[in-house]
Amino acid sequence: MIEDKIRQVASLIDPLLKNSLSGSDNLHKAALYLPSQGGKRMRAFLVVKSCELVGGDVKLALPAAAAIEVLHNFTLIHDDIMDHDLLRRGVPTVHTLWGVPMGILAGDFLFAKAFNILLSTNVEPDRIRCAAQIMSESAVSLSEGQSMDMEFESKLDVSEEDYLLMVTKKTASLFEASAEIGAIIGGGDPNLISLLGEYGRNLGVGFQIFDDYLGLTSKEEILGKSIGNDIREGKKTLIIIRSINSPLRERTLSLLGKRYASDEEIAELVNALRREGIDDYVLKKAKLHIDLAIRALSILPDSPAKQDLVELARYAISRIK
Amino acid sequence: MIEDKIRQVASLIDPLLKNSLSGSDNLHKAALYLPSQGGKRMRAFLVVKSCELVGGDVKLALPAAAAIEVLHNFTLIHDDIMDHDLLRRGVPTVHTLWGVPMGILAGDFLFAKAFNILLSTNVEPDRIRCAAQIMSESAVSLSEGQSMDMEFESKLDVSEEDYLLMVTKKTASLFEASAEIGAIIGGGDPNLISLLGEYGRNLGVGFQIFDDYLGLTSKEEILGKSIGNDIREGKKTLIIIRSINSPLRERTLSLLGKRYASDEEIAELVNALRREGIDDYVLKKAKLHIDLAIRALSILPDSPAKQDLVELARYAISRIK
Repeated sequence: MIEDKIRQVASLIDPLLKNSLSGSDNLHKAALYLPSQGGKRMRAFLVVKSCELVGGDVKLALPAAAAIEVLHNFTLIHDDIMDHDLLRRGVPTVHTLWGVPMGILAGDFLFAKAFNILLSTNVEPDRIRCAAQIMSESAVSLSEGQSMDMEFESKLDVSEEDYLLMVTKKTASLFEASAEIGAIIGGGDPNLISLLGEYGRNLGVGFQIFDDYLGLTSKEEILGKSIGNDIREGKKTLIIIRSINSPLRERTLSLLGKRYASDEEIAELVNALRREGIDDYVLKKAKLHIDLAIRALSILPDSPAKQDLVELARYAISRIK
Repeated sequence: MIEDKIRQVASLIDPLLKNSLSGSDNLHKAALYLPSQGGKRMRAFLVVKSCELVGGDVKLALPAAAAIEVLHNFTLIHDDIMDHDLLRRGVPTVHTLWGVPMGILAGDFLFAKAFNILLSTNVEPDRIRCAAQIMSESAVSLSEGQSMDMEFESKLDVSEEDYLLMVTKKTASLFEASAEIGAIIGGGDPNLISLLGEYGRNLGVGFQIFDDYLGLTSKEEILGKSIGNDIREGKKTLIIIRSINSPLRERTLSLLGKRYASDEEIAELVNALRREGIDDYVLKKAKLHIDLAIRALSILPDSPAKQDLVELARYAISRIK
């Protein structure tokens, strides 16, 4: 089972995270809180498996895998502040517990630690420089993507292309970086690094489309966060963009950005979306990107690592949370 | 004049900053806004002069100098959000103009860019790795120092030692990193790097003690920000710690943390502080650290770069803003 394999990598990464982030004051507690609540560790798995695929020593990729998870958790903490989200992984968000100033600071601390951990990797300096450069480029993209996501909240004419560019920056860039960094640390050649990057990018787009879908169609007790918040926040996810451009336009607009829309109102709209077939359309789009991810690996010879990456891609759009 | 020399380095750095940060959307505008308002560029000067002192090619240190300024500006933007400050460099703060979410994001973007710029330095990868590691450690310290600064706001029993540890992390660590990074890029040996680090750390402590002093005794039109905000925010600067532990204790406590304390109330307390000789004590402490900074360089042979660093240290506690 791919989930067991991901958990196995997580069990190697989590002690590294705790070691790097622990401390007795509020800053360290606030910074370690979200990574301690779990999370899927898909990005860490991707780093490790990319390293394995290019024939590298997997042990050497563990700090990079931890670094990517630390960076990811930094973005979640800041995004939750910007989006005023109260729940994440079934528990209150960092700024809800420690206040906005400490939330900002905990994120900054994790950002710094992510580079600190990656740069301590025990491989040739040129590989480390290259991996760190990719992480910094990805961090630039993450902020640009989050900016687009926020700007879209006050726009109605967001196209599917706009959405794809936004999620490529906001989500896929870190999946792409994870795959590339694993391959670089493993000593992969530029061709392999590029193929794995393409795999990671498409995986990330498919993952995010599916994530947006779950955020509207799953249940709070499964997902660990409120259902329909994308609608309440006026987000322009693919499912919402399709809905705006369907006979459901007026119904969608009447709920979009309505902070206090009830769970019933959200559920009624979701049912209507299903009747229009919008959920099917969105799932198909997610699947298309997962297929592109898998296709990027098709010219590579079969190997256990390749098989794991294929399964990871399928898992990304079949998971329930 | 040292100020002219600093301006000269600034004129080399500023085009690099603009080039790296420019863009047409709100994120890029918000990110470039503060660096465009000037700033002294003392840290950039320190990077360049440390590189020169160890005999390195100064041109190669310019990206690192720009990176340090970008990192510094990131911390200012986030600190202003956390401290609810409305003015900086005589203009409204980033979050005042673009809102808190975009302020957080502009800071994150600058943080990522700082690493991006530093990692693009055209020297041997092991020097870059080492410089980036120092920058990441400094960024960890900056967040720890800011956390201490915030925690001190709700404490009265903050000692001078606590204050020194806080400013060493919050301010001096970036001066120390600037000096070390310049020396590393210039190919300095470990002894030189360590001496320059000691210089930078003491310079940073002296700078911050003097900065806190200016923040209470200067004028808004000179300083570019409100006078006495440290008192209004309940900050524990050295001058305030001394004041709490003086016959002025009750008067100080009656204003400390009072958000709407008037300019007149602040001015009256400052006059009383002067009569107690607390301003002299604080200036002496600042001077002590500046002397320690200069002494760290004393075993080095005379050179124009050494002379510039000595003058920079003296400038740090004689500037008027």
